[in-house]
Amino acid sequence: MKTSIATVCISGTLVDKLHACAAAGFDGVEIFEPDLIAAPESPEEIRALASRLHLSLDLYQPMRDVEGVDEAEFARVLRRARAKFELMARLGMDLVLCCSNVATATIDDDAVSAAQLRRLGDLAAEYGIRIAFEALAWGRFIDDYRRAWRVVELADHPSVGVCLDSFHILSRGHDPAAIESIPGDRIFFVQLADAPALTMDVLSWSRHHRLFPGEGSFDLAGFVAHIVRTGYSGPLSLEVFNDTFRQTDVRETAVHAHRSLRWLEDAVSRRLGADADERLARLPEPEPPTGFDFVEIKAEDTSAVEVLLAQLGFTARGRHRTKPVTLWSAGRARVVLNEQHAAGQAPHLAALGVAVPHPDRLAARARELGTPSAFRRTYAAEQALDAVRAPDGTEIYWVGAAAGEPDWTTEFEHGLPDAAESGASGVHAIDHVSLTQPWESIDEAVLLLGAVFSLDPASSTDVAGPQGLVQSRVMTARDGDVRIALNVVPTSLAHAGEGRRGLPQHVAFRCGDARALARFARTRGLQVLPIPDNYYEDLAARFDLADDDLAELRALGIVYDRDDAGEYLQFYTRIVGDVFFEFVQRLGGYDGFGAGNAPVRLTAQGAGRDRT
Amino acid sequence: MKTSIATVCISGTLVDKLHACAAAGFDGVEIFEPDLIAAPESPEEIRALASRLHLSLDLYQPMRDVEGVDEAEFARVLRRARAKFELMARLGMDLVLCCSNVATATIDDDAVSAAQLRRLGDLAAEYGIRIAFEALAWGRFIDDYRRAWRVVELADHPSVGVCLDSFHILSRGHDPAAIESIPGDRIFFVQLADAPALTMDVLSWSRHHRLFPGEGSFDLAGFVAHIVRTGYSGPLSLEVFNDTFRQTDVRETAVHAHRSLRWLEDAVSRRLGADADERLARLPEPEPPTGFDFVEIKAEDTSAVEVLLAQLGFTARGRHRTKPVTLWSAGRARVVLNEQHAAGQAPHLAALGVAVPHPDRLAARARELGTPSAFRRTYAAEQALDAVRAPDGTEIYWVGAAAGEPDWTTEFEHGLPDAAESGASGVHAIDHVSLTQPWESIDEAVLLLGAVFSLDPASSTDVAGPQGLVQSRVMTARDGDVRIALNVVPTSLAHAGEGRRGLPQHVAFRCGDARALARFARTRGLQVLPIPDNYYEDLAARFDLADDDLAELRALGIVYDRDDAGEYLQFYTRIVGDVFFEFVQRLGGYDGFGAGNAPVRLTAQGAGRDRT
Repeated sequence: MKTSIATVCISGTLVDKLHACAAAGFDGVEIFEPDLIAAPESPEEIRALASRLHLSLDLYQPMRDVEGVDEAEFARVLRRARAKFELMARLGMDLVLCCSNVATATIDDDAVSAAQLRRLGDLAAEYGIRIAFEALAWGRFIDDYRRAWRVVELADHPSVGVCLDSFHILSRGHDPAAIESIPGDRIFFVQLADAPALTMDVLSWSRHHRLFPGEGSFDLAGFVAHIVRTGYSGPLSLEVFNDTFRQTDVRETAVHAHRSLRWLEDAVSRRLGADADERLARLPEPEPPTGFDFVEIKAEDTSAVEVLLAQLGFTARGRHRTKPVTLWSAGRARVVLNEQHAAGQAPHLAALGVAVPHPDRLAARARELGTPSAFRRTYAAEQALDAVRAPDGTEIYWVGAAAGEPDWTTEFEHGLPDAAESGASGVHAIDHVSLTQPWESIDEAVLLLGAVFSLDPASSTDVAGPQGLVQSRVMTARDGDVRIALNVVPTSLAHAGEGRRGLPQHVAFRCGDARALARFARTRGLQVLPIPDNYYEDLAARFDLADDDLAELRALGIVYDRDDAGEYLQFYTRIVGDVFFEFVQRLGGYDGFGAGNAPVRLTAQGAGRDRT
Repeated sequence: MKTSIATVCISGTLVDKLHACAAAGFDGVEIFEPDLIAAPESPEEIRALASRLHLSLDLYQPMRDVEGVDEAEFARVLRRARAKFELMARLGMDLVLCCSNVATATIDDDAVSAAQLRRLGDLAAEYGIRIAFEALAWGRFIDDYRRAWRVVELADHPSVGVCLDSFHILSRGHDPAAIESIPGDRIFFVQLADAPALTMDVLSWSRHHRLFPGEGSFDLAGFVAHIVRTGYSGPLSLEVFNDTFRQTDVRETAVHAHRSLRWLEDAVSRRLGADADERLARLPEPEPPTGFDFVEIKAEDTSAVEVLLAQLGFTARGRHRTKPVTLWSAGRARVVLNEQHAAGQAPHLAALGVAVPHPDRLAARARELGTPSAFRRTYAAEQALDAVRAPDGTEIYWVGAAAGEPDWTTEFEHGLPDAAESGASGVHAIDHVSLTQPWESIDEAVLLLGAVFSLDPASSTDVAGPQGLVQSRVMTARDGDVRIALNVVPTSLAHAGEGRRGLPQHVAFRCGDARALARFARTRGLQVLPIPDNYYEDLAARFDLADDDLAELRALGIVYDRDDAGEYLQFYTRIVGDVFFEFVQRLGGYDGFGAGNAPVRLTAQGAGRDRT
């Protein structure tokens, strides 16, 4: 379908915004009035620029407080409307958004509102303009799209229809199914926004916390499916008020926004199945990954990481044929150490790989979603892997999910794993990865991991550390063994120059017996992150652990969690550069991450004091 | 009264926190359990450190979900409680906070809760420990302090009393007057937090947005007055969960926190009048300023500012006797240009002065509030002015409010004003000042301006600019002519290196006729900030201004606002360095700042592109 976006979604001047929206692939824009008022360019210049950029000017917005008023006030409404219709004529625009009255309404009567909309429609018709009437969630009297539609029906004017905004409908919990009772040609415009599940006043929620589709908790595919079934033929347009997106680079944010609509159209098309409209963009089939394939640690000198891996029983599988890169593995857990083009860099998590059923299909999907691809030099006879670069800079590769070792491992000296290796320490897989996110791109990362890799986001949680709260959002693969935690660093740390981004990244490996692994690693000289005695005393108060079990956990620096589903044991290495490793054992159906233990870890890591 | 603070309020490790609280002057602390659990120090070490620092350990907190449960669950409660009581004995602590049940409560019966608190009291008594029971605002059954007190009365145990927390009571709108029906010796602890007026779920509001007293909208002086009237003899303790204070420097935040309690005690004492308890700290009388005395612009080279002032009809009053400082004035608007110790600095607003009835009294008040004083070299026979340094670095001076020119102006070559000077352009006073605030110190600035200068804060508002929302909080003097806008810069700009802090500061001068002043300045070559034509077309749509009036405003670059009380005219100079000037005319009772015009100005200033 045609894509559009309100200029209020993004930063910069109106001219900046038009250029960015056109470059990102939008078909049109909604002109947010304050953007035009603040622009030095004339309406004719804006019209001409949009024309050159092949952007349609879809909706002028908003006109406020137009109905439910007394006659004296309505005279002022008509005077104001005429001025705006004249302006719209200069812009070459023919659709205006009128919101339900929040400020001046004194008459709670559908007939009065309808009569006033009809008179406004008469005036608009003189200019060839149509009115899209929208129920704001906090409208004084009209705050439900079903009532807005009743008023539009009563107005019974060809120039008056409804605008449906997903936020105003879904934030109030109104059932969107009744959309299908509205004829598609009476829906003049559709505005889309996602949002996190928050309990706060709906006005603040709307003005500050909207998100692009795929980043929040609304069922937007279901919402748009209702719209499509009506035969609506206008654009799908984003109207997202978000404090962050108003600040970020306008070109990047426009690309990000457009990706969300591409993803949404595909999701709607799949939701509709055989009923799908052919105008809906259809992307290659989404498929969640089945597991992690590898992680890559990059540094000028990776030897400190090699020490850790050796202590933890990983097998060194030798150097790559053509690059200063080595491979270590334990079971299905593979770690690539990369010293190529890494001058001056401390060890950090530079890339990860996931296994997917159809790599080519995923590559095509990523391409059609306009994701930035990561480049890696590959020589003839080496396997070329596809990858995207996540907003935080991490490269995410994918390889075909097949039994046994992936093909790329044969490029290393000891391509075939030592049969005994996973027996040495019991590490058998990568359990999860934590990526530190800049505050301004966490939502973009959620969309990218969701749209490209079909990972499902959990709600945000906060973890208290000694330098502030760390906002954490976990993304997981349905039926797959991939978990990625996206952690937003507290602002003060992000700019304090501690490590690469204020918080270390980490890789958690899963093992069959955390106690045995910790003992094994100790005999090889591993120093684990020290956990305070006070922690174990609290553990004793919370759980009825046997004294000798508790003593062993304490001696090994293992932290513990339990829920109704099972148990969880964890221990941590010290931080090397900007990364550390964690080793976890899951017992029963435990599916969490020991969030209750994270504050203790963060304090023990002490803002970098633990760095080796 | 004794002052205390919960360790959760501030950043760092438990040891960092104890040092900071002692240094800031607190008498004691509440130990927030997770801080202890994460600490590598033993309870005995913490006890010994607190003893050396002369800090009492006032309250161990929190124990959760202790009542309203079935017998099996209560057995677990007792087991957990015994472990914590043993720990408290090692810490030498005798008071524990028990919150009303939020998670495990199944029995909604005061008699059951009371019986369980009584049994817990019996166990606590074995350790010489007392229990302070608190109703959380989101308690499962007990969510009102009056019910918590009924349960405590029913429990009828000398070791069981109530804890009163201002947030849990005032956030729910519960009338605090009933506090006076509780005997003071049954109130075991008092926790204080302020908060902004927000409409959101009370749990999130509580966990993220609490503020120190004097920074939010609660009537804490009234709250504490009720407490004092009961004869309560324990500490006033701060429990403030705030995402920012958890990140900021622990030593500075502890000082800031302590200042809020000093201010509050004084405010309570004044509220109680003759009933005031002598234990309440009493500070010198607060007195709001009557007006601005001067602003100071500092730079290595201030000549670009001199050009502006000359164009706007200010009179050059010559150099200071001993310093590379010049004075300009127009009516009561005085501008000091300071080139001392300013190597490499672009023009910026470095200081301002206000006139107050009793400068010595204010100096004593500032000192007792522990505010950092600003130093200025003064020679014999020069007037020594007192000043505090606000958190953003601006120095705020005060001088005696008297008719005519302040004494310090005689230190300049042309000390006595030219009788004709204010006639030249009609500028007669400083109307307001806008100070750009770092995101982490806006609340501290609100407290400082409120506690020291008795300015009243308005609620926060947001102004949309092309690079994000600017959060703005205005502070005004009761019955005085002082208005200071504190503007928090969007995070992306704060770290982008645009200007000193991402947004310029500004000084607004008031004049009797903005049109005449703008015409006058134009003839002298002033270039005003250009305002787009689109703005004036919107103005015509909004207000019924005469065409020729509108044309004149447009020609002069004057923006306009009107409300029920009156009208407002404004125009702006271009930005010089990090500062610009604004000229305003107030008509009728208009008391705002033309907030609706600010987005147009911000866009015209275009992220620094307007800098000269």
